[in-house]
Amino acid sequence: MAAMEKETARIEAFSDGVFAIAITLLILEIKIPAPTSANLTAQLLRQWPSYVSFAISFAFIGIMWVNHHRLFTHIKRANSALLFLNLLLLLGVTAVPFPTAVLAQHYGGSGQRAAAILYHATYFVIAIFFNVLWQYSSRHLLGKDADVSAAAGISAQYAVGPLMYLACIALTWVSVPLSLLLNIALAVFFAFPPRARR
Amino acid sequence: MAAMEKETARIEAFSDGVFAIAITLLILEIKIPAPTSANLTAQLLRQWPSYVSFAISFAFIGIMWVNHHRLFTHIKRANSALLFLNLLLLLGVTAVPFPTAVLAQHYGGSGQRAAAILYHATYFVIAIFFNVLWQYSSRHLLGKDADVSAAAGISAQYAVGPLMYLACIALTWVSVPLSLLLNIALAVFFAFPPRARR
Amino acid sequence: MAAMEKETARIEAFSDGVFAIAITLLILEIKIPAPTSANLTAQLLRQWPSYVSFAISFAFIGIMWVNHHRLFTHIKRANSALLFLNLLLLLGVTAVPFPTAVLAQHYGGSGQRAAAILYHATYFVIAIFFNVLWQYSSRHLLGKDADVSAAAGISAQYAVGPLMYLACIALTWVSVPLSLLLNIALAVFFAFPPRARR
Amino acid sequence: MAAMEKETARIEAFSDGVFAIAITLLILEIKIPAPTSANLTAQLLRQWPSYVSFAISFAFIGIMWVNHHRLFTHIKRANSALLFLNLLLLLGVTAVPFPTAVLAQHYGGSGQRAAAILYHATYFVIAIFFNVLWQYSSRHLLGKDADVSAAAGISAQYAVGPLMYLACIALTWVSVPLSLLLNIALAVFFAFPPRARR
Repeated sequence: MAAMEKETARIEAFSDGVFAIAITLLILEIKIPAPTSANLTAQLLRQWPSYVSFAISFAFIGIMWVNHHRLFTHIKRANSALLFLNLLLLLGVTAVPFPTAVLAQHYGGSGQRAAAILYHATYFVIAIFFNVLWQYSSRHLLGKDADVSAAAGISAQYAVGPLMYLACIALTWVSVPLSLLLNIALAVFFAFPPRARR
Repeated sequence: MAAMEKETARIEAFSDGVFAIAITLLILEIKIPAPTSANLTAQLLRQWPSYVSFAISFAFIGIMWVNHHRLFTHIKRANSALLFLNLLLLLGVTAVPFPTAVLAQHYGGSGQRAAAILYHATYFVIAIFFNVLWQYSSRHLLGKDADVSAAAGISAQYAVGPLMYLACIALTWVSVPLSLLLNIALAVFFAFPPRARR
Repeated sequence: MAAMEKETARIEAFSDGVFAIAITLLILEIKIPAPTSANLTAQLLRQWPSYVSFAISFAFIGIMWVNHHRLFTHIKRANSALLFLNLLLLLGVTAVPFPTAVLAQHYGGSGQRAAAILYHATYFVIAIFFNVLWQYSSRHLLGKDADVSAAAGISAQYAVGPLMYLACIALTWVSVPLSLLLNIALAVFFAFPPRARR
Repeated sequence: MAAMEKETARIEAFSDGVFAIAITLLILEIKIPAPTSANLTAQLLRQWPSYVSFAISFAFIGIMWVNHHRLFTHIKRANSALLFLNLLLLLGVTAVPFPTAVLAQHYGGSGQRAAAILYHATYFVIAIFFNVLWQYSSRHLLGKDADVSAAAGISAQYAVGPLMYLACIALTWVSVPLSLLLNIALAVFFAFPPRARR
């Protein structure tokens, strides 16, 4: 059992590595304007969706990292199920740069709505993975002295996620920019720790 | 000797870094459709082999990471041979993105079988490296209180690997999709811990 | 509270990962000359701005890493604000490869001044982030036995940063090479630990 | 002083991160053949210099990692000089993928000798950095119970490096393949720990 408890630290260290790499790779998606062109400033400004998407993706992966740590302050034991549920979550995290780049390149074009749906769908799937990881862990892997009301607070906060990201997808038919604003609002919501529930 | 035992933790930390990076780099292989094109959804859907290969490679590297840790719960000492055998294994792990990308781009085309053979051959070589690392470690580097039956269980499970990946290569002449299904089945087989042997 | 103190070590480990990746990705910005061309030596020499910018960016990220550690030898506690201020700083650090590559490719061309302004502006923003992180931490998160004069020395050194990087931007209208020399001089200034103040 | 001793562990962890990333990025240099072409097997085989250079670079960075750890088993204290000498060494390590890719793409072509000189020169510079780091550390930063004869053995082994890599450069005028064989032989020489000297 002691070996299994040490596993928790290892899973965190490995996950930290994945988060650190995913967040650092984001800059590679921004293209460097070719030196042949006349006006560099105009070229740089035209790329604004890339900068916005870089900043937003950075914030989102950062917020997911903060949440991941929040969960692991409660999780005290590890087993094979946790190992694989955690890998599933990391799969979602490492995928983020792709829908982000697609959205950045197609924002304002004809593929704008398809790109926004792909983007929201990624976060919908990640929200599901967060819920599954937490539902399993909070039932089987908490310590004896677990803070039950704090755990219930997390459960309540996370339960909102999948539904709201579905709402983002639905909103794309009304307005793509509006759906993105809701997405950002959700990130802010998850950045703050939940209130404890009784 | 104490310094050598500390080395085990260092080898694990370095290996964790390599696994974390290899698993995160996979997303870079997925191409972002150019914004000039008419229908983004169709373009995104046409890339399905890239998504499948991303998910499968992620799962495979994840499973190899789980196995690497499983071995190092038994390995208690380190020497130069372990250092180099471990580097050999990591060489195989970091190479995975290349055959995966080749397979994703050539699946369904004329180079499909050659790509599948390269893919299976990579896992064949990795399986050999896992066996060599474990055969050496289990004979020379286990602790005094080693769980002999658990170690024998790992040996038995790993011995199956190289032969089965050879079978995958042979199967490509019958059916490439079938050979890939066997490859996936093998990953599932290695995801589960072996039964202890007496 | 004990859990919060452990958080400091985690933030450092995560930040170390981000610094390590950002510093290692720099080499990817250097292009490999195509093998079709006649004279490889001439081609390699023509790329000298890329090598200079690689070396300088490496030094700068290295110096920022040294400074980050210097701060965290004083910071003894963690809270949500530190988590997000630290993420903000890392956002700046991971962005460095982009303005560096733009400068390397446009140095000597018509976009030279715009590229230099973008470059200095990045360091201006990073300097602001360093100040905000340190001002907050030095007021709220130092240990009871904090070295007050050392902390004051850091505050004094960092306060210089934003103003000097603004001076770099202004200098680009006089001479771009001169502004870059000032930028390098600033890096050397921040490489050395500040004198303690009373 | 205790804080400074803890610094040694931090420098190692950061360096491990850089080594892990540098060794994992190597695979990105191998190009994936385009799916339009007729014969994939022939295309894959034609790329053999890329595979050889991947394997060799992997081995070389692995051997440098082993050497880095060997040094840090002796180094017990840290100061600003060590911080910067270590960053200098890491600069050399992260640069390795560039000369390696240049050599892989120009081997057998007209730029072959220039590429080989660049390649050997990189290792010449790294050998200098290893010597400077070790000469400084072995004089100022060893523990009180330092193994003097082991340290002298490392000094003797490392002193050979710069001269031999100069010999590699000179050999390119006789035969490029021969110079590369000497380079590989040197890597094997540094892979093994030195004999203790009295």
